[in-house]
Amino acid sequence: MKKLTQTQKAYIAGFLDGDGCLNAQIVRRDDYKLHYQIRVTLSFFQKTKRHWILLQLYKCFKVGTIRKRPDGMSEYTIVGKASVKNCVQILYPYLRLKKLHAFRVLQIISKLEKNQDPQAFVKLCEVVDTFQDLNDSKKRTLTSEVVRSNFLQLNLLPVPVETI
Amino acid sequence: MKKLTQTQKAYIAGFLDGDGCLNAQIVRRDDYKLHYQIRVTLSFFQKTKRHWILLQLYKCFKVGTIRKRPDGMSEYTIVGKASVKNCVQILYPYLRLKKLHAFRVLQIISKLEKNQDPQAFVKLCEVVDTFQDLNDSKKRTLTSEVVRSNFLQLNLLPVPVETI
Repeated sequence: MKKLTQTQKAYIAGFLDGDGCLNAQIVRRDDYKLHYQIRVTLSFFQKTKRHWILLQLYKCFKVGTIRKRPDGMSEYTIVGKASVKNCVQILYPYLRLKKLHAFRVLQIISKLEKNQDPQAFVKLCEVVDTFQDLNDSKKRTLTSEVVRSNFLQLNLLPVPVETI
Repeated sequence: MKKLTQTQKAYIAGFLDGDGCLNAQIVRRDDYKLHYQIRVTLSFFQKTKRHWILLQLYKCFKVGTIRKRPDGMSEYTIVGKASVKNCVQILYPYLRLKKLHAFRVLQIISKLEKNQDPQAFVKLCEVVDTFQDLNDSKKRTLTSEVVRSNFLQLNLLPVPVETI
């Protein structure tokens, strides 16, 4: 990753606050031991006619992928614990609107780095749930509740005391 | 206006590039000698639940007005030559996506500060026309063409040579 100046970091933080997205989602992954993965992403969007700004941002971070969507928008996405952690840590001091998003993403990543038991994973999914509200996004179907009920069916979670 | 640090200016420039609007428009003003006014505005929008970010920006610039719209959005708008000039000059070195907007707004303001004859005013309206494209905005009805044709009717412009 390029060594960025304070003003470069502050600019990108402002741009992210204005038009970027910092997100955490639960995704189904049948090849995973726990059947689900928590995915963290940092993304920037722009009309393809201003694609160059995304290339500029890519030159700063040197991770992630840029794609031109068929609807005339371009999207620069950074996915995955290590990359997102690096970028978010750099921007963190300068963020305002998305500081809480950043805090929670870093919290999720730090816990994901440890070995996850099913109970701790469901707890973490509850933190992921809060991103629906943080990002004004539409109602999510894959929530901590879905994961919990799936884990219960698979006997991955201890049965709640009051039902014994 | 508050003395802003480099990182504050860079942050606001990033935020403006991401989610703000720098605009110039022609508006009808019957009380004006030339019947039209060129209005320059710098504005920031945000869902009212994050109204506080607009208050933070206001504290930096100390000009303009913030209003809560009935549709759940809040809007911070700075209008007028002197105020917009001050703010844009501060942000100019840090802008990227909206640098050309800023350049043109400053160009318009500097020409508006001089006494305007009808011919020069129409020329300036042509610069204003370019903001439709710069801001991906819908087709404008009040363009330099409308002003020119109105000025011709009022005999404010010399008749083109080829029609004499």
